[in-house]
Amino acid sequence: MSLADTARKLDALDPIAHCRDEFDLDPDVVYLNGNSLGALPRAVAPRLAEVVGQQWGRRLIRGWGEGWWGAPERLGDRLAPLVGSAPGQVVVGDSTSVNLFKALVAAIRLNPGRPELLVDAATFPTDGYIAASVARLTGVRVRPVPMPEAAAEVNEHTAVLLANHVDFRSGVLHDMGAITEAAHRAGALVVWDLCHSVGALPVELDAHQVDLAVGCTYKFLNGGPGAPAFLYVPQRFQDAFDQPLSGWCGHAEPFAMTPEYTPGAGVTRGRTGTPDILSMLALDAALDVWDKTSIAEVRAKGLRLTDFFLSCVDELLGDRVTVRTPRDTGRGNHVALSVPDAGQVMKELIAREVIGDYRPPDVLRFGFAPLYVRYADALTAVEVIAGVI
Amino acid sequence: MSLADTARKLDALDPIAHCRDEFDLDPDVVYLNGNSLGALPRAVAPRLAEVVGQQWGRRLIRGWGEGWWGAPERLGDRLAPLVGSAPGQVVVGDSTSVNLFKALVAAIRLNPGRPELLVDAATFPTDGYIAASVARLTGVRVRPVPMPEAAAEVNEHTAVLLANHVDFRSGVLHDMGAITEAAHRAGALVVWDLCHSVGALPVELDAHQVDLAVGCTYKFLNGGPGAPAFLYVPQRFQDAFDQPLSGWCGHAEPFAMTPEYTPGAGVTRGRTGTPDILSMLALDAALDVWDKTSIAEVRAKGLRLTDFFLSCVDELLGDRVTVRTPRDTGRGNHVALSVPDAGQVMKELIAREVIGDYRPPDVLRFGFAPLYVRYADALTAVEVIAGVI
Repeated sequence: MSLADTARKLDALDPIAHCRDEFDLDPDVVYLNGNSLGALPRAVAPRLAEVVGQQWGRRLIRGWGEGWWGAPERLGDRLAPLVGSAPGQVVVGDSTSVNLFKALVAAIRLNPGRPELLVDAATFPTDGYIAASVARLTGVRVRPVPMPEAAAEVNEHTAVLLANHVDFRSGVLHDMGAITEAAHRAGALVVWDLCHSVGALPVELDAHQVDLAVGCTYKFLNGGPGAPAFLYVPQRFQDAFDQPLSGWCGHAEPFAMTPEYTPGAGVTRGRTGTPDILSMLALDAALDVWDKTSIAEVRAKGLRLTDFFLSCVDELLGDRVTVRTPRDTGRGNHVALSVPDAGQVMKELIAREVIGDYRPPDVLRFGFAPLYVRYADALTAVEVIAGVI
Repeated sequence: MSLADTARKLDALDPIAHCRDEFDLDPDVVYLNGNSLGALPRAVAPRLAEVVGQQWGRRLIRGWGEGWWGAPERLGDRLAPLVGSAPGQVVVGDSTSVNLFKALVAAIRLNPGRPELLVDAATFPTDGYIAASVARLTGVRVRPVPMPEAAAEVNEHTAVLLANHVDFRSGVLHDMGAITEAAHRAGALVVWDLCHSVGALPVELDAHQVDLAVGCTYKFLNGGPGAPAFLYVPQRFQDAFDQPLSGWCGHAEPFAMTPEYTPGAGVTRGRTGTPDILSMLALDAALDVWDKTSIAEVRAKGLRLTDFFLSCVDELLGDRVTVRTPRDTGRGNHVALSVPDAGQVMKELIAREVIGDYRPPDVLRFGFAPLYVRYADALTAVEVIAGVI
């Protein structure tokens, strides 16, 4: 069967093909950058129009008592099933970097007397930058470790390991269960960054007894450019969770306006300033698509889709590219190909309406968001790549 | 002349009455809470529809190269004239609490070896909470001082004074020039919180040689619920500005993805995570009204409007209330009245569509946003208060 026939067949049989209808997509574009900025869910524009026109415009300040105030926890509970969390353990707000800062300082305070903060040596840069700042403020030292050696490197000096679930460059999926367990055996805590896994594959925070986690919502969760991030604090740590961005919205009684900070109950204490309602309720609308599918279905399609893309790469590109992403299931939903002059190649692909991204030094990165990417898109992309390189 | 005649005359002569047309207001509501959440500018809904439908929906990830990435600095430059700043010194993003954290840690690092952080004793709570957290992380101690004594209390032990420009309860306007000068004489730095002054009255950060400042955009700037805040870093401190939330968006070369953090040039180093584009561009639209007026005109009306409100209070409420706000020009654009059982009184006012807010223990707070509040609204409010208390 030709690749085109295979793509047609796979699309015809795709059990979540209907999810594509929930997105407002440009028919001329092959969009393979949903791992960086998810496409626009159709539900967002009308929801934002209502939030702006009716809630803000008509209810004004009263909106805070009519759903806005509790949005960070309510949205956290909507995200919870996607990260394997019981309700009441996820709060939405701020950026990933800001939540990482909260989580790392809190983790070091939960595990005092240990001098080291281990950081994934291949981490997305912001994690390393924030870790360095936290180390400087709290007096620990940062030690970078390659993720494959993280479980072995965690030791009695380790306060906290900061780990990425899926590597932002290569797409490698790290073993959350094994790494968390190894860290716990050494008496260390692990903070997981879920940016490249949430919405792409099942994440089991509670089952793996994860200590703390953060993630963003603008990639596979389609929350929009710069959509608010989230913070996971499991119940067992909530009473002791002591975070440094102790703004009034995390206070037990924010409107009592008392001079002393008393942290709120549960995950609420992870909040800082006034929640950003427009972006938060845009995300709320974006999450509606999860009522029509499940993360298990999305993961199944994600693997089939990237498998098919890799078959096309093998057949049409051969040794003109090097595949940097594992071919087994130890990967997320993006595929990294190394080529010479990758930055220029990506510019030419984008000019031909095949949108992925470039990551230094030589990586073409293609994200496959199963909610709206078709098998036919994967084939088209490889055909266009073949014409460019 | 009756109060009603006076109101009619003042409204007829109001040189910025036309600005009210820029807002989408409920004709049945007297909205005196624009000091907490500004009303909806008509420009916001169509702008957001365009940002969502066209920019996000059609340009997708390319939006970052087509205006999104630079929005924090571009919007900072739009705010700059409102706070008396030259261009290139204001950056928009995050919440006020998060920006305060950045500013306070950076200020303490700019002025090392001094053990005290002075904080306005009547501060809005989040400032005190964040100051306490910063003190704990940096090893300084917090000392609360009443703002009227701040200039006298700053001494050779003071690293930083955290001061509010307008008191959130009473509406008292503090003397930015005199306090900053006194602090500088003692070798201390001052971080000013502009939440209750920006957009209400002229702020002269450069002229007063202010060290650092933060403020929000959802009050008198009408940016919407939870709109992004801003941070001011004057040019003279930019090279040394060393802030703890050193996320990738403040990096000199964010897309080089280098493992070391190198802070960006100028005020860009005040950035942290991915900017929240939906809220940021809603604010952009909200700022358009400033093309039709000036902060001097707004301030002039603000004083006349609160004067008129106080005349109505004197005549119709007499000694049933106590005015907590100064009657001279040493005030912002809100008026605080003390009454017994203020919380219940405010509930009844809101039920009658006169919307102010309650601040413990006994304050009714009424904000007069000169862009859309009429003199007739001030009179109506006092008439309704008279019927309730």
